[in-house]
Amino acid sequence: MKHKIALAGCGNVGTALLEILHEKKKELKDKYAFEYEVVLIRDLMKGTIMNDLGLDMGTVLGELHERNSFGAFEQASGPLGELLKRSGATVLAECTPTNLKTGEPGLSHIRDALAAGINVTTTNKGPLAVAFDELTAAAERNGVKFLYEGVVMSGTPIIDMVKNGMAGCSVLGVEGILNGTTNFILTKMTDGATYHEALAEATELGYAEADPSGDVEGWDAAVKVVILAKILFGQSIQVKDVARLGITQITPQQIASASKNGNVMKLIAGIDFDTFGIHPYVMPREIEASHPLAQVGGAVNAITVKTDNLGEVTLTGPGAGRRETGQALLSDMIRMSR
Amino acid sequence: MKHKIALAGCGNVGTALLEILHEKKKELKDKYAFEYEVVLIRDLMKGTIMNDLGLDMGTVLGELHERNSFGAFEQASGPLGELLKRSGATVLAECTPTNLKTGEPGLSHIRDALAAGINVTTTNKGPLAVAFDELTAAAERNGVKFLYEGVVMSGTPIIDMVKNGMAGCSVLGVEGILNGTTNFILTKMTDGATYHEALAEATELGYAEADPSGDVEGWDAAVKVVILAKILFGQSIQVKDVARLGITQITPQQIASASKNGNVMKLIAGIDFDTFGIHPYVMPREIEASHPLAQVGGAVNAITVKTDNLGEVTLTGPGAGRRETGQALLSDMIRMSR
Repeated sequence: MKHKIALAGCGNVGTALLEILHEKKKELKDKYAFEYEVVLIRDLMKGTIMNDLGLDMGTVLGELHERNSFGAFEQASGPLGELLKRSGATVLAECTPTNLKTGEPGLSHIRDALAAGINVTTTNKGPLAVAFDELTAAAERNGVKFLYEGVVMSGTPIIDMVKNGMAGCSVLGVEGILNGTTNFILTKMTDGATYHEALAEATELGYAEADPSGDVEGWDAAVKVVILAKILFGQSIQVKDVARLGITQITPQQIASASKNGNVMKLIAGIDFDTFGIHPYVMPREIEASHPLAQVGGAVNAITVKTDNLGEVTLTGPGAGRRETGQALLSDMIRMSR
Repeated sequence: MKHKIALAGCGNVGTALLEILHEKKKELKDKYAFEYEVVLIRDLMKGTIMNDLGLDMGTVLGELHERNSFGAFEQASGPLGELLKRSGATVLAECTPTNLKTGEPGLSHIRDALAAGINVTTTNKGPLAVAFDELTAAAERNGVKFLYEGVVMSGTPIIDMVKNGMAGCSVLGVEGILNGTTNFILTKMTDGATYHEALAEATELGYAEADPSGDVEGWDAAVKVVILAKILFGQSIQVKDVARLGITQITPQQIASASKNGNVMKLIAGIDFDTFGIHPYVMPREIEASHPLAQVGGAVNAITVKTDNLGEVTLTGPGAGRRETGQALLSDMIRMSR
């Protein structure tokens, strides 16, 4: 049975997914019995193309690499829900830009796909932060799969690990470095740079955006904490419930003082759990050199999960690059297919 | 549908599994829709008890804790294959002692269970080191599940992570600290102890056995490399194919020299992969302080997997204790039930 893949959003992540799928077409069939066609690609800027028998991915990728547009092809038009039906899609990969307040347009895309009985994989944090319960209930009601490995730690499979790898373990708390940009900056500051020097380098390397506040004020990490609170503890909270402080006020003196104490300054995203409930936070913290997260440097992510049966388990992986996030979508699709 | 669990081998690991199952009975039902009865427990020393309607686990655990024996109960007898049929078991948890040469008695237990159409989970390295291909083929032929999360890194789910969490990624190499005993010893030596002082402390703490050679000569790690070679690279090798050197010849001078170079001495179990094929090894190596495994100290395990889509991913967890290994069996059973 061939999977018919629809892609909403063909930016860096969407393009990376298409590249990986194309590159690995034979391997996916041989190793995972995963056969597919891409039947729909919808992008606000690049255009919308559809072929219910399967788009010619060699040609599509050629156009993407040459002109970064689908303008050379005949366009399909209409609302996504309608296009999904006409294309015969069996799975939607939703990777439109994240809007943390409204979740749109991703939220509507996912609602439409689930309502149409189409499986969904997404790396888009907005819809999950805003409507997790509604979407998971809709998936269950319609008997379809809804996976979102990429929303925390990108393709490094922390979500699958907690839900499946560690099935039977109870989670007692979690601490993570969930934003690669701020970890890069703090690593550079630990090596002697000022905040502004480190931010400038992060921007140059593409780790920080023109407006870096989403990262440096801890918003990105806070959204991930909201999602983890749901996945790990079953609790529905909002970003405003996360005690949040970013890294913009950290001084070189604080960094030097931490080093002198044998500690490391990190922006920790975590959830403590006690008899009063969960305590979600994103805070700069001076952690001991022996802490599992202390040596995690650069634009990477790491998470330490505290459990009953396994004590502390730590997973470290790359930051959210294009290929890593394409991998998250691919692994979701393979898992759905089993 | 209630899972009917048979346990072969009721030593530390088997007992831990029974304790976790009993403790979490309600949670397993509520959280994982996993309902069970224990229908058969077979232990060479303690005795064999069976009840196709389900043993009274409160009473069984009481006897285990008080007398460490099932002598007070009516005994069941016969070959395991026959007992499995009479008990109506749907899954066998195989945790008899490991024999790395013959794989017995675990190998026969697993063969009998798979042939009888019973799912199998095991933490027993011997059968996998000796007959991996035969057993996985038998499972497939009989349409049953055969899982073995606990054989590498105990309950820390590296096997599930590579097979499922990272589905779609290609593995390009692996390096690990797969034996907690030797890592404990080397950590103590890095802190100034001699090899013999560190070994004595390891023995006292129960990390090392009376005859520690399985750990300190690298045999335990080498068997895990054999299993990883199969799981990660699909290659069937034997323990003798692993270039193996233990830690018995490491001197305090070498340790001190490593520290002076800013490096750490670790017993690394790994598989390199190039155009000539795979290169499996267990070797003491001086690794840089920035290496993901350098700061992993004590009786713990860690593994760094090098991949195409995710670069390096590192998973760190506790060493193979009783509860951790019970967790491996439990998570396998939950995964089988889905």
